[in-house]
Amino acid sequence: MTTTPLDNWEADQLKESLSERVKGGFGAFWVSGSRPVEPPPVIPIALTGGIPDADALPIDQLVEVSNRVLRESGPEALRYGGHQGSLALREWLAEHTSGREGLELTANNFTLTNGISGGLVNVAETFLNEGDIGLAESPTFPGGVGAFQNCLCEVGGVPMDEHGILPDELEAAIKRYEDDGKRVKVLYTVPNFQNPTGYSMALDRRHAVVDICHRHKVLIAEDDAYGDIRFEGERLPSLFALARGNGVVYLGSFSKTMATGLRVGWTLAAEPVIDALLQTRFDLGGSPWMHKVIHEFASAGLLEKHLETVNEIYHRKRDAMLSALDERCSRYATWNRPEGGYFLWLTLAETVDSKALAEAARRHGVAYVGGYAFHRDGGGHNAVRLAYSFVKEDEIPEAITRLGRALEEAADGATG
Amino acid sequence: MTTTPLDNWEADQLKESLSERVKGGFGAFWVSGSRPVEPPPVIPIALTGGIPDADALPIDQLVEVSNRVLRESGPEALRYGGHQGSLALREWLAEHTSGREGLELTANNFTLTNGISGGLVNVAETFLNEGDIGLAESPTFPGGVGAFQNCLCEVGGVPMDEHGILPDELEAAIKRYEDDGKRVKVLYTVPNFQNPTGYSMALDRRHAVVDICHRHKVLIAEDDAYGDIRFEGERLPSLFALARGNGVVYLGSFSKTMATGLRVGWTLAAEPVIDALLQTRFDLGGSPWMHKVIHEFASAGLLEKHLETVNEIYHRKRDAMLSALDERCSRYATWNRPEGGYFLWLTLAETVDSKALAEAARRHGVAYVGGYAFHRDGGGHNAVRLAYSFVKEDEIPEAITRLGRALEEAADGATG
Repeated sequence: MTTTPLDNWEADQLKESLSERVKGGFGAFWVSGSRPVEPPPVIPIALTGGIPDADALPIDQLVEVSNRVLRESGPEALRYGGHQGSLALREWLAEHTSGREGLELTANNFTLTNGISGGLVNVAETFLNEGDIGLAESPTFPGGVGAFQNCLCEVGGVPMDEHGILPDELEAAIKRYEDDGKRVKVLYTVPNFQNPTGYSMALDRRHAVVDICHRHKVLIAEDDAYGDIRFEGERLPSLFALARGNGVVYLGSFSKTMATGLRVGWTLAAEPVIDALLQTRFDLGGSPWMHKVIHEFASAGLLEKHLETVNEIYHRKRDAMLSALDERCSRYATWNRPEGGYFLWLTLAETVDSKALAEAARRHGVAYVGGYAFHRDGGGHNAVRLAYSFVKEDEIPEAITRLGRALEEAADGATG
Repeated sequence: MTTTPLDNWEADQLKESLSERVKGGFGAFWVSGSRPVEPPPVIPIALTGGIPDADALPIDQLVEVSNRVLRESGPEALRYGGHQGSLALREWLAEHTSGREGLELTANNFTLTNGISGGLVNVAETFLNEGDIGLAESPTFPGGVGAFQNCLCEVGGVPMDEHGILPDELEAAIKRYEDDGKRVKVLYTVPNFQNPTGYSMALDRRHAVVDICHRHKVLIAEDDAYGDIRFEGERLPSLFALARGNGVVYLGSFSKTMATGLRVGWTLAAEPVIDALLQTRFDLGGSPWMHKVIHEFASAGLLEKHLETVNEIYHRKRDAMLSALDERCSRYATWNRPEGGYFLWLTLAETVDSKALAEAARRHGVAYVGGYAFHRDGGGHNAVRLAYSFVKEDEIPEAITRLGRALEEAADGATG
């Protein structure tokens, strides 16, 4: 059969037809990230991806559980499951979360989402009007900011340190916007092992943040993607628990505990808020097949066992990375020692030129994400995110050796 | 562990915090649809769901294919796949669609979406600003309208008949809005076996619609969920093919051909449009596991074979429904004879009171969707959507017998 090429849209028509969202370019960083780039000279060891250890993925168990789901309840697994998602999985979440946080929760306090990212889109559409203000830690996960900006909102950054967002800075930012006659609607925060820094919010700050947001009627969108990846210390209560749900939407996920490719997360909120969240959903919900697989996996105790396994792995990987950094990089950077999560945050010494570092790292074959990717204001060039979750444990020393060489050259270049 | 109840959000704060989208209540019909209702006195035979035959779901093949995907490429299947989705599946779509429509297409002309519903949300966000106008056939699939309204747009209905949307009415509607100084941005249409009517757009109307929309710079969002469910006659070229892609986004899905619970559909458009569509995605994409399962299924020829099987089933079911209707309902209604798809559309005789029919159908144990559910303007009470796709073939005569009794009573009631 002969085929004919597509006609081009008239460029003017296309441009004129696009929404203000596209014209704002808020999602451009995702699109450009998916484009092919020139391959590097050395196959790099990647410290980039915030994704689970590939060798520890519970593939055998998923095969078994998935087969059972399809064999025993195929027709239900393969039809629409509704916007709120699997009742059984929401009931499991209610029981599990009630016990952990000391709250009375039911399945009606949950909706299932396309990962936390899908949940953030849903929260944004449910609460944000054009011109509203969102706030987020600086640095932060850019997808959260993008979801807010996509509702034609401005997102302001609030400084943080190793103990989380700075409450005084938060309140000052809210007041600045209020003085300008603007409405701060939502604070986006990742209080446990934050992406990108790995920093966690201290208990006194959690209380202060809840108090400030409550007084200023700012909704908190609490992203807890990493809270279950804890291999040291004790879990702190969520902001949701401290506020007893008042003014907080908590977002959780099976992405970092099981697999990012399942695309299943959840929101937890008071029932009237859940009802509101459902009113801006038009995607006909996630896959009941995936929901049922996760429910079978979790309710059989496999998730808990899997977490024990992977948390040991992440513990060893973090330690391997810390000791390699001590040995190779201490002249050129400082970093934190997170009790969990996937990430370390390197703050570069003033002697290190970040562009020279990027170039040298590419040459030596180690990949990381530059801190600027997590700032929307042009900052963050003096920092680097290192993920220890995905890299093979036995490649960590070599990766950090390469990084050390790159740092040395970047520092020499800057000072020489 | 003791648990404490959640605090209620202050009602005023919640109300004040919600976006205009929620206040518009555009999604209320989905939410209310998911709430439990009083059980009916007789277990009804359901002619409601636009979902595939449950007995024909390819469960054994999905088990086999899914196991192969997880065993052979588990780590890739279980990690993020990006907003555009599986390259392999998009390549299959490009090859398959190029051959069918006579167009030169590549994987870059496609994005994978959370079913067509997810695609419609994406199209809406990419093209619609607050105050823009959307148009749709009347009656139409309410989810499409909801996705447009959720961008704070008005959606006008354009009358249709058995041969699809009426071109003169379409152009008149566009001109009315233009005369009011409003911008008609998008036409939403389901040209093949439309939901809810089962009507298909005739070839001359396809040409006319493309021409009208091109002249008025109205983008066409062409929803082809049912085009592959054809058991008689010949497929007509898509609006996308007639326009050679200019000004049209085509939306396809594996929901009706394979299973709605997979939650995988796609958009097909010119590359600059695909790039724009990707800029309003923040959900981190669908599940690569599901994408790979579908790719394996389709590229092994199983989808084609499956379609042959199910189209025979739907053919028989349609025939069973038509002959039962002839026998039981011809005094009270008229209906169409679709060459494919899932639905028949009954237009009730003037003697039939629609409320009395709903009540009698509930009593006699047959469930359908009232036509009003597909009109946003309060119309459609004189019509009923019957789905033959999901009901068991051997239950169709009894279902229609019950419907006939209900019609008889509703006509008696109205005239007596």
